[in-house]
Amino acid sequence: MISPNGASGTRVIAVDAMGGDHAPLEILKGAIEANARGVSVVLVGQPRVIAPVLEQLNSRLPIVEAEAAIAMDEPVGLALRRERSSLRVAAGLVSSGDAHAVVSAGNSAAIMGIAYQAWKMLPGIDRPAFGGFLPARTGPVFVLDIGANTTVKPSHLVQFAVMGSVYVQLSQGTENPRLALLSNGTEDSKGTKEVKQANETLRKLDLNFLGNVEGNQVFEGIADVIVCDGFSGNILLKGAEGVVNEIFDMLRTELTKDLMSKVAGAALTPAFTRIKRRVDYEEYGGVPVLGVNEIMINCHGKSHAKAITNAILLADRMAKERLPQRIREALLEDTGDASRRRRLVRALHLSHE
Amino acid sequence: MISPNGASGTRVIAVDAMGGDHAPLEILKGAIEANARGVSVVLVGQPRVIAPVLEQLNSRLPIVEAEAAIAMDEPVGLALRRERSSLRVAAGLVSSGDAHAVVSAGNSAAIMGIAYQAWKMLPGIDRPAFGGFLPARTGPVFVLDIGANTTVKPSHLVQFAVMGSVYVQLSQGTENPRLALLSNGTEDSKGTKEVKQANETLRKLDLNFLGNVEGNQVFEGIADVIVCDGFSGNILLKGAEGVVNEIFDMLRTELTKDLMSKVAGAALTPAFTRIKRRVDYEEYGGVPVLGVNEIMINCHGKSHAKAITNAILLADRMAKERLPQRIREALLEDTGDASRRRRLVRALHLSHE
Repeated sequence: MISPNGASGTRVIAVDAMGGDHAPLEILKGAIEANARGVSVVLVGQPRVIAPVLEQLNSRLPIVEAEAAIAMDEPVGLALRRERSSLRVAAGLVSSGDAHAVVSAGNSAAIMGIAYQAWKMLPGIDRPAFGGFLPARTGPVFVLDIGANTTVKPSHLVQFAVMGSVYVQLSQGTENPRLALLSNGTEDSKGTKEVKQANETLRKLDLNFLGNVEGNQVFEGIADVIVCDGFSGNILLKGAEGVVNEIFDMLRTELTKDLMSKVAGAALTPAFTRIKRRVDYEEYGGVPVLGVNEIMINCHGKSHAKAITNAILLADRMAKERLPQRIREALLEDTGDASRRRRLVRALHLSHE
Repeated sequence: MISPNGASGTRVIAVDAMGGDHAPLEILKGAIEANARGVSVVLVGQPRVIAPVLEQLNSRLPIVEAEAAIAMDEPVGLALRRERSSLRVAAGLVSSGDAHAVVSAGNSAAIMGIAYQAWKMLPGIDRPAFGGFLPARTGPVFVLDIGANTTVKPSHLVQFAVMGSVYVQLSQGTENPRLALLSNGTEDSKGTKEVKQANETLRKLDLNFLGNVEGNQVFEGIADVIVCDGFSGNILLKGAEGVVNEIFDMLRTELTKDLMSKVAGAALTPAFTRIKRRVDYEEYGGVPVLGVNEIMINCHGKSHAKAITNAILLADRMAKERLPQRIREALLEDTGDASRRRRLVRALHLSHE
């Protein structure tokens, strides 16, 4: 039994101390900061690697012993067979009730695979999904799936819509989030046959569904949740990341061209910092694997301490809000209106596909 | 017979004077400027609409009579049945040998439909495709398809690769353009089953094929031609447009916040203008419908005069370079190496799909 070491009550967050490009140093720094902000944390990994760094950082956070992390390029099949990897041991702590959520900046495919293997799917959900936040005019927009499911059935898109809606409600405090399907045109007739059929189904459900949106509209903040297959979601997210990087790169080049540009650029540093901050993934920390029975927060492999701290705070909040249970309730919602419930269950497993 | 009115020899470009959000004024201005730069132009549309504007602009460009443009939201099926629409009449001028290319800022779906209907496909190509340029670190990158083909077979992706390669060679002067497939991971094992099979086939052909690239790499300028289905291509392109708009919007807000920002911002106006120019679609003018037997340049519906001028100059250059014939040659290339030719023909119509 791990005794809680924070102020957050009895919840404990298991942190994969070995996963990520900057593990263990940045992971430990992030965990220490989250702990200082009141969250109980347990580190999972090889004591001989973690302990010296922890000592350097003057911290006594508890360590649960595991073997090395799953490598970033390790095939998932292989990774799932390693019973003592830091990620697997961390997931096991949640299964045994010793922890209440896992945070990892490790191999994303393995993170999803282990979440599924250890905890199984929520009833009514066929596949786990990853989401990600994109910065839009009005604030962050949640896009899912962004890579777990390269191809999808219409019913998967409907399931993503329900899960995304609950997650944005809990994590952003948005009441009744506006949902939209990502497509190559706003008309209901636009998109792949999966998008068209999901559109038709979502129109019949009691969700705040706006219809189809195009890539540019995502950034106008037209919706709070953007639903798509993992292939196009990944392209949207990575493409946006690429554009942001290139524009800031051009700005850097332009602002060092001559003395006047340098002076003007220096005066604008706070403005650029504010903009950069709005488009910075580290602010969001990480995103959960949606659809499984417990909470697993996946951080960018490149995460530094700030992202890890934010991910741990998020994990703690999602554990407090009981994210998986809330998704389950949304799926099985019994408002006394049996026909609505039947409609939703049918929509989640469309028979005609 | 239309007598050439420019210095470009006997080539004539037919301009749909009625199509686009800013028709006819901006279209005519753009056509007049292209003509002043030496390109023979004929305007196609309703004389009673065009003539007064032309007179205002002190121009005597020839007009070929047609009826109204196809509306931007007119269903393609309906549009294709209208035999006297400005676009249809313009395409007819090319069919009859009176003109050598068409430029239109009208309804994109109709532009593609009419190009196909009037001119038919090149042998070896199954479907027309639209491409578009994205600004990358090293210069423009050509992405196709960007909306014409929502779903594709692997053989279509291979055909897009061949067409994109020829087009970038002719329009950008890039020798042996670097080709890549857009995917959700760089490994050959990543992507939809169509992407995976196209990857396998492209690896066997004598093309400068790099493999799969992710959304962010597109903007790093890792390749000259990005091949994808029209659904993801559209999302990549529109998403990038959205990000650029939002960042410039944030900059505008930040740079008018206080006096110092205003002064610094004013000093940086030339820098911002240079950046904006690099990401401005008007610079590219338009893009051809690839895969048909003649040249049709499609401009953004929002095009102003500059884009129209650039599109007409492009149309003239493509007519001079004989774009469709060059694609046909690439498809049927007979280097004396019969096995290479058989390999290409097989790849373009993969039997196992």
